[in-house]
Amino acid sequence: MAKREAHYTDYLPEILEVASREGVLLVVEGADGRPNAMTIGWCTVGVIWGKPILTALVRPSRHTYGLLEKAGDFTVNVMPADMKEAVNFCGTKSGRGHDKFAEMKMTAAPSRAVASPIIAEGVIHYECRVLYKNDLPDDVLEGPIRDAFYPQGDYHRIYYAEIVAAYADEDVRERISGP
Amino acid sequence: MAKREAHYTDYLPEILEVASREGVLLVVEGADGRPNAMTIGWCTVGVIWGKPILTALVRPSRHTYGLLEKAGDFTVNVMPADMKEAVNFCGTKSGRGHDKFAEMKMTAAPSRAVASPIIAEGVIHYECRVLYKNDLPDDVLEGPIRDAFYPQGDYHRIYYAEIVAAYADEDVRERISGP
Repeated sequence: MAKREAHYTDYLPEILEVASREGVLLVVEGADGRPNAMTIGWCTVGVIWGKPILTALVRPSRHTYGLLEKAGDFTVNVMPADMKEAVNFCGTKSGRGHDKFAEMKMTAAPSRAVASPIIAEGVIHYECRVLYKNDLPDDVLEGPIRDAFYPQGDYHRIYYAEIVAAYADEDVRERISGP
Repeated sequence: MAKREAHYTDYLPEILEVASREGVLLVVEGADGRPNAMTIGWCTVGVIWGKPILTALVRPSRHTYGLLEKAGDFTVNVMPADMKEAVNFCGTKSGRGHDKFAEMKMTAAPSRAVASPIIAEGVIHYECRVLYKNDLPDDVLEGPIRDAFYPQGDYHRIYYAEIVAAYADEDVRERISGP
């Protein structure tokens, strides 16, 4: 399936819907050449500093955090409906103990503009270069959010990344709305 | 023109396009009951903490900043193509010296869920309640962005706000793509 270049807003409603529902896969290259995929359910997309920006949140306890701090770039991959198991696996297992690509039969394919690979089986792809990062400090987060998401104080780091490439499979809209 | 409830992603490509091109209007109520409108060209939209989130950036030097710190909510209004002059005015004049609503013949109308009003003449509206805010610290921003946008060190505060209501005029797509 050919992947066609897209404007970064072309599939934005779809990306946010899939992210909220089952999650999308954030991929970072590993120092050992082995990439890791982490499921994210939260992200924002828009424009800051005149650039298309994606923000992603990663907790310091995650394996991805250490990789991301070294790599400085990542990809976001929306998987087709028939790969929900892989998305679930990548959201519940750590890359410290698993080679998620091998176990879920996912293919790491070269990106167009960043070092971190995409997942070939994905249907929408963003390539992202980190421009800025910021930690969530606890004292300004309102109580209910703090209580629900940070009972152990494991606050996210927010990564602001420029979307340097965006592309999608031609039949993406059919393939993400499957059962 | 009736304004119909929308999903927060329904007009997202349009909102980001208009924001990047001429800007959209962020409205905050004033302590004196007089709302102020500021043009923003940057924002991101997505999901964080399981909620629909809009992030907006405001510099502490802006009149809107003081109002926003007190109000805790705001609206984002996409204006129709025939009101580009108002968008330009609100992006170049300060509310300290101008009643922008009166001078641009804009109507402040009650919001559905927040205290800050919407602009009745707008065609897409988000009502936003601030959940979290964060200042851009200078030491982690890369050089070119710092040099281009913060030569005087007037760093933005980033507001993370929950989108508590979203609605749009029925003919919005025709009216934002005018000349």
